[in-house]
Amino acid sequence: MYTIDMNCDLGESFGVYSLGRDQEIIPLVSSVNIACGFHAGDPSVMRQTVALAMKNKTAIGAHPGFFDLLGFGRRKMQVSSQEAYDLVLYQIGALHGFVRAAGGRLHHVKPHGALYNMAAVDENLARAVAEAVYDVDPTLILYGLAGSHSLRAAQSIGLRCAAEVFADRAYQADGSLLPRNLPGAVLTDEAACIRQVLMMVKTGKVQAGDGSQIGVQADTICIHGDGPMALAFAQQLRLTLEQENVQIKAAAICQE
Amino acid sequence: MYTIDMNCDLGESFGVYSLGRDQEIIPLVSSVNIACGFHAGDPSVMRQTVALAMKNKTAIGAHPGFFDLLGFGRRKMQVSSQEAYDLVLYQIGALHGFVRAAGGRLHHVKPHGALYNMAAVDENLARAVAEAVYDVDPTLILYGLAGSHSLRAAQSIGLRCAAEVFADRAYQADGSLLPRNLPGAVLTDEAACIRQVLMMVKTGKVQAGDGSQIGVQADTICIHGDGPMALAFAQQLRLTLEQENVQIKAAAICQE
Amino acid sequence: MYTIDMNCDLGESFGVYSLGRDQEIIPLVSSVNIACGFHAGDPSVMRQTVALAMKNKTAIGAHPGFFDLLGFGRRKMQVSSQEAYDLVLYQIGALHGFVRAAGGRLHHVKPHGALYNMAAVDENLARAVAEAVYDVDPTLILYGLAGSHSLRAAQSIGLRCAAEVFADRAYQADGSLLPRNLPGAVLTDEAACIRQVLMMVKTGKVQAGDGSQIGVQADTICIHGDGPMALAFAQQLRLTLEQENVQIKAAAICQE
Amino acid sequence: MYTIDMNCDLGESFGVYSLGRDQEIIPLVSSVNIACGFHAGDPSVMRQTVALAMKNKTAIGAHPGFFDLLGFGRRKMQVSSQEAYDLVLYQIGALHGFVRAAGGRLHHVKPHGALYNMAAVDENLARAVAEAVYDVDPTLILYGLAGSHSLRAAQSIGLRCAAEVFADRAYQADGSLLPRNLPGAVLTDEAACIRQVLMMVKTGKVQAGDGSQIGVQADTICIHGDGPMALAFAQQLRLTLEQENVQIKAAAICQE
Repeated sequence: MYTIDMNCDLGESFGVYSLGRDQEIIPLVSSVNIACGFHAGDPSVMRQTVALAMKNKTAIGAHPGFFDLLGFGRRKMQVSSQEAYDLVLYQIGALHGFVRAAGGRLHHVKPHGALYNMAAVDENLARAVAEAVYDVDPTLILYGLAGSHSLRAAQSIGLRCAAEVFADRAYQADGSLLPRNLPGAVLTDEAACIRQVLMMVKTGKVQAGDGSQIGVQADTICIHGDGPMALAFAQQLRLTLEQENVQIKAAAICQE
Repeated sequence: MYTIDMNCDLGESFGVYSLGRDQEIIPLVSSVNIACGFHAGDPSVMRQTVALAMKNKTAIGAHPGFFDLLGFGRRKMQVSSQEAYDLVLYQIGALHGFVRAAGGRLHHVKPHGALYNMAAVDENLARAVAEAVYDVDPTLILYGLAGSHSLRAAQSIGLRCAAEVFADRAYQADGSLLPRNLPGAVLTDEAACIRQVLMMVKTGKVQAGDGSQIGVQADTICIHGDGPMALAFAQQLRLTLEQENVQIKAAAICQE
Repeated sequence: MYTIDMNCDLGESFGVYSLGRDQEIIPLVSSVNIACGFHAGDPSVMRQTVALAMKNKTAIGAHPGFFDLLGFGRRKMQVSSQEAYDLVLYQIGALHGFVRAAGGRLHHVKPHGALYNMAAVDENLARAVAEAVYDVDPTLILYGLAGSHSLRAAQSIGLRCAAEVFADRAYQADGSLLPRNLPGAVLTDEAACIRQVLMMVKTGKVQAGDGSQIGVQADTICIHGDGPMALAFAQQLRLTLEQENVQIKAAAICQE
Repeated sequence: MYTIDMNCDLGESFGVYSLGRDQEIIPLVSSVNIACGFHAGDPSVMRQTVALAMKNKTAIGAHPGFFDLLGFGRRKMQVSSQEAYDLVLYQIGALHGFVRAAGGRLHHVKPHGALYNMAAVDENLARAVAEAVYDVDPTLILYGLAGSHSLRAAQSIGLRCAAEVFADRAYQADGSLLPRNLPGAVLTDEAACIRQVLMMVKTGKVQAGDGSQIGVQADTICIHGDGPMALAFAQQLRLTLEQENVQIKAAAICQE
């Protein structure tokens, strides 16, 4: 029997600003990544989102990002490895406090946005992020882009990790994602997206843009929660996975 | 034999901005309150300050304040009890992460500036702060103004606390501090300051402005670390306390 | 013939966070108050909102607030008069730059949220706000609560001002608004709201909670733009005013 | 007779944090670049620094930077041209308000840190910055790295500009600065620094690392104001320039 984790970013509201459909998406996923106040989220939103996850018995992850609320953590910033280590540790700690106060357990860490993308391709940054996660709690699981430096860094220091894949993104022959600014980068056909997930889960392979089939580790799949179509897709994907006897549960150890 | 804790605010630098003489003051005190990034401090400063405290075997406390770097957390803000709970919990968690990563142990929490002052006189705010401390870790000690709502709130929920006194502030007949904007509020004579501390430690009393002697619990004394005179005073106070057989060590349980 | 200005807060989005129905409300009002990046708004939102106002030929005002995005500028902060002067001047200047770049003209300034409320009842704060407006451009008009210190301060330094009234708020016998936390503070009956506006515009009076009729200067009326009901009400109010031969145009001088 | 402007960054303090020796350096320079609250400075510091510059009759410039107080605007950020335009316009406007309130006149704009460096080598960013300056006031002068895209962009839209040179930086054969992380990038011999300035001012040339002499436009020279050695150097440079009949005055038009 196959297993996969469905993860979703949560708790991205800030003050009077509301974002996402947290209440609706959470029953559909097995783990959530909660914003930690730097790129989104605030202390009150974090507390409420932890409570929501506890109530839904969903695995709780920290979702640290750059200190750039204006850019929602999506803009690359030139940070040193030490700065990356420090900002990741700070944010994990902050969320950990709320999880602890709620009587829960922090399960994983998934870096957000530009930090996620930069760590995927930068060995030093990847190492800094992995070490921050390990140092705050060596039992945490790092979610990172399948096949990226993020996972290799985790493994090199003995940190558990989960390889993340995407339903709606085109892969290149080297296993990397086709950059968003190129045509065809985002798959828009739902059926094709679901087929891609099933293939990754069942065969450990994905079809690249040039037609070749390449190996891809699929421990967790990134689910969007920010619109009616995203919700419908998550529902359809979940249904299909269950029909295909794929068990949906929070990521454990990455065996890559 | 008498005992008192000498505590000092630390880690108040931010980015390129340097503040305080952390390296010089830390050998003179028994516990430090480390800024958590809201009113001062940043993730890198926090990591470095925790390392400094670990090296000096000084008890480590979180020093949460209002999210007001521009006002250094000294400006009153109208926050709900829930907001106060959330911002205190967030900041304790963040510092806790660094302490944990350094292999240390968080010892206490001392609210900063306007939050400290507001909680001292507002029962609901005091309760919210105490609950945040308790919820993140019930073994922590809350430092609060001697005789204030802060301590009563801690005691009412079973949280350990330490009563803080001041060497250089004039007391009123009801046990409260003479507000800073009134004449005579700040004592400038070093010898008088030291006498006031010795009297509080040895007799549990302090002389109020009207000449009366009032009871005051003195578990910990607030030491400033931001100038050559502050350092010299801390040195002199420490020397005198040792000569008078007063043991200086991190605050344990408040027996008030 | 009677005249009144209908003003509305605009440009309160921030980064990825969207707030308000700016496109829909702007045709209904005669002047807009654009957030300046402290309590809401960001440089890009400000540029876009200025362009929207220029296109609609609506009078443009700066809407400075406290530096508290998390609290949307609604939380009271303890600021000195000098701090208030400085933060108001900074924000007016920032918006003024965008207006100037767009070839427009800044028409007025309306302080936001807690700053508006605090200046209304605090003579020194009111004076600081009025002076900041005057110093950056003495031809600007200050919008302030009818009958408040805000307007008196403006008049005392020769700054033009407009007295703001509310359709949906209950007035007290002394002319002040019934605080929001008291029952009956917010009127929910649309017809009653419209009657209140018409009475204020045509008779210069409003009926207080105790039944007495008190004088109130009504130069501009605050319109909400953040919901379908708010839009419908604004439409109905505008229609009724036009039917009653009340001219709707941007506030000029307050004759109070 | 030769002429050069000596410019210095000013007003980089923030809240309780003090930075720089503004009072001491200002008499030595002919123009100042005042931080605008994004990478440093705050509304109160801006007002005070404008007053200081007015008192010293020094030409006043805006010094806009990235919204990154923690990194002091020195960290590269991935901003779109539109974002750069907006953040520059916002900050110029804010400072302009204070200058106007003080009865002064804004003279120039010098982008700060990473924004300055990025605009120097990125044509689109350079254009966006130049347009923001032009749009807020077409009579302003843009200070930019000599020979860089910053100046070309200004000239292409008819904006006046001044070419900035450095006393203490090594130049490469293509006219660019040797990057700071390379050995020999920063000249430490005062006499050599002064010789470099004199050569640039009098001959329009500078000696590159490979021994070749290359053309360099020198309208303004960047003076540091943040330490006793910087002050002494500025004094010595000014004295030498005066002895060599080089007139020191605020930059006018760049003839490059």
